[in-house]
Amino acid sequence: MCRSKTDVAAPSNVCEASDAAPAVFATGPSTTIGIVGGGQLARMLAMAAAALGCRTVILDPDPEAPAAQVTNAHIVAHYNDSEGLAELAAAADVVTYEFENVPDEAIDALAPIVPVRPPARALSVSQDRLVEKQFLVGAGLRTAAYVPVDSQPDLEQAVVELGGAAIIKTRRLGYDGKGQLRIAGAVPATAFEQLGSVPCIAEAIVDFTCEISVIGARSVDGATRCFEPARNDHVDAMLAQSTVPSGQPGAVVAQAVSMATQLLDSLDYVGVLGLELFVLADGSLVANEFAPRVHNSGHWTEAVCAVSQFEQHMRAVLGQPLGDPGAHSDCVMTNLVGHDVDALDGHMRDPSTRLHLYGKVEPRPGRKMGHVTRVVSR
Amino acid sequence: MCRSKTDVAAPSNVCEASDAAPAVFATGPSTTIGIVGGGQLARMLAMAAAALGCRTVILDPDPEAPAAQVTNAHIVAHYNDSEGLAELAAAADVVTYEFENVPDEAIDALAPIVPVRPPARALSVSQDRLVEKQFLVGAGLRTAAYVPVDSQPDLEQAVVELGGAAIIKTRRLGYDGKGQLRIAGAVPATAFEQLGSVPCIAEAIVDFTCEISVIGARSVDGATRCFEPARNDHVDAMLAQSTVPSGQPGAVVAQAVSMATQLLDSLDYVGVLGLELFVLADGSLVANEFAPRVHNSGHWTEAVCAVSQFEQHMRAVLGQPLGDPGAHSDCVMTNLVGHDVDALDGHMRDPSTRLHLYGKVEPRPGRKMGHVTRVVSR
Repeated sequence: MCRSKTDVAAPSNVCEASDAAPAVFATGPSTTIGIVGGGQLARMLAMAAAALGCRTVILDPDPEAPAAQVTNAHIVAHYNDSEGLAELAAAADVVTYEFENVPDEAIDALAPIVPVRPPARALSVSQDRLVEKQFLVGAGLRTAAYVPVDSQPDLEQAVVELGGAAIIKTRRLGYDGKGQLRIAGAVPATAFEQLGSVPCIAEAIVDFTCEISVIGARSVDGATRCFEPARNDHVDAMLAQSTVPSGQPGAVVAQAVSMATQLLDSLDYVGVLGLELFVLADGSLVANEFAPRVHNSGHWTEAVCAVSQFEQHMRAVLGQPLGDPGAHSDCVMTNLVGHDVDALDGHMRDPSTRLHLYGKVEPRPGRKMGHVTRVVSR
Repeated sequence: MCRSKTDVAAPSNVCEASDAAPAVFATGPSTTIGIVGGGQLARMLAMAAAALGCRTVILDPDPEAPAAQVTNAHIVAHYNDSEGLAELAAAADVVTYEFENVPDEAIDALAPIVPVRPPARALSVSQDRLVEKQFLVGAGLRTAAYVPVDSQPDLEQAVVELGGAAIIKTRRLGYDGKGQLRIAGAVPATAFEQLGSVPCIAEAIVDFTCEISVIGARSVDGATRCFEPARNDHVDAMLAQSTVPSGQPGAVVAQAVSMATQLLDSLDYVGVLGLELFVLADGSLVANEFAPRVHNSGHWTEAVCAVSQFEQHMRAVLGQPLGDPGAHSDCVMTNLVGHDVDALDGHMRDPSTRLHLYGKVEPRPGRKMGHVTRVVSR
């Protein structure tokens, strides 16, 4: 049921030239790591870089960006601002990013001057849900059946093809359930319009028992390491909780890790990525999507692993050896969203709980303010 | 053998007034924690504060202070600079410090305006080795025999009184073996001059089997929590390695924790302190000295405890509940001194090792550049 339209652009491949050995950067203050974006992921990456002694510089238009509080320098500029990008390229030895929707202009401005890790290809693949699905299938990963949708008639036809029910998603942007429409039965005449009349993808609804995710890392020399899969529970289409271990049998865990490894290798990836997988009733796995960055469902690693996902990403970005992803304890990570941060006393008093706040001032509804990880001895 | 001179000033007590409930500050960005000093201890404190969502401002004369890289603000001023101190007092909700030799002027400038934690008394006690010994004895802790020394004749008499051998230390300043003279037998005629002709203390040489230290914490409500004692090994009079567990039997561990708790209570302390103890052949303990701050021999806590000594200190300074000091694993923390940081590859490749660098550029001999903690499953 996977058909592609000829107008789907092949992802560009601007990986580093493979005939030269990839650059390795020293741990320590002689290395400055640039980060595009200054949210909580950049903040935690910057702290991991600091523990490795490295300097950091972020590019973020928000003068109050959470990461700015813990970085050596903050270039206050939009992600497509050529002057800001030039400044970042000049200041950093190597550049990474904290979100997948980095504009092409940013990569085009940075990549000729400074190594960008993970490779730009991972960005271009993950920015477009159709390209992403095609890539996953090409990499040997099973996905939900999908159909490209570029019009209301396309959309109606797709729902029929997919058996009368589907989730329609915009191909670009949209996250945490935004830019999505779930259809079962009659298709609203304004469905395509509701999604902004932009290129979309229709996906078959997967009847899954739960979602798990794998946080995987790949180094410049091709070595891979995956953290144990977490089981993810959502509220209002936003991740609420990640539980480790996932409760899945060993064969499912092994399959999940194998799929993440296939993806890492297919992308010739450098860094950490998060791969979301649906677990079906028969124990088989369907790839949902991946994020070419550290991932909310991997925040627990800071509490129970020798090397967190943030340090692991930094190690990969530097070209340094990956750390051990083994966990010494079980745990449950819970996001603190919006006004959840108004009541921290219980978390502060709970001896088994590790609190991590992002330094954001305004607890708007739906805004990720921090997380807590409850650690349980094995 | 403990005698005191009447000219020894009693430590001043500028603790917060005990008739008012001590102030509690929120975890989160509405609280700014000031730190006097900007070295590696301040750096790790600032990162712990950031994980609790708090803002930090440091006062340090060095524009390249290691902590400046991870703090919200850096007041570049000397510790006795009245303008800088006023700026710090205005910017911070509560102030702490990373070293015990904070000048009196600093506390005098800060304390009337902003809570200073740990209390100033802990500073005044620990700044003077004679006052410190007297305080430890008053708190019920056994110390080495000691004699005040204010002249060469005093010094010669002290060595006789202490049995023909002693360590003479300047009462103020001096650390890592600096400002000390070990005498056994004949006393050099220039001994007092060699120590700068400043007030000194002569201490009996303790025949100990090893040194251990306890990192203890006390909250504003008087609750205390101690991390497990570590065994400390020194090279060139500087801490080289801390090992947990210490290898001491349970009774010794319990006695060590009890002594740290007595000290915390006697000082009406708020925050984390490090108490160094000599273990004698019969298993009894002699208090060597304490530091009213986070301590090098507690760096291992970041690798194997839910709450590190840095977060624990920040929790206490905020007036928040203390965290659980339990360790999930055994470990060995090794300081990286000077050019130790030129060879990090082995540490980066060792899956059981957690590396922490301080961002210092120049690896001068004797300069603490970072540490590694090797984690061993229990």
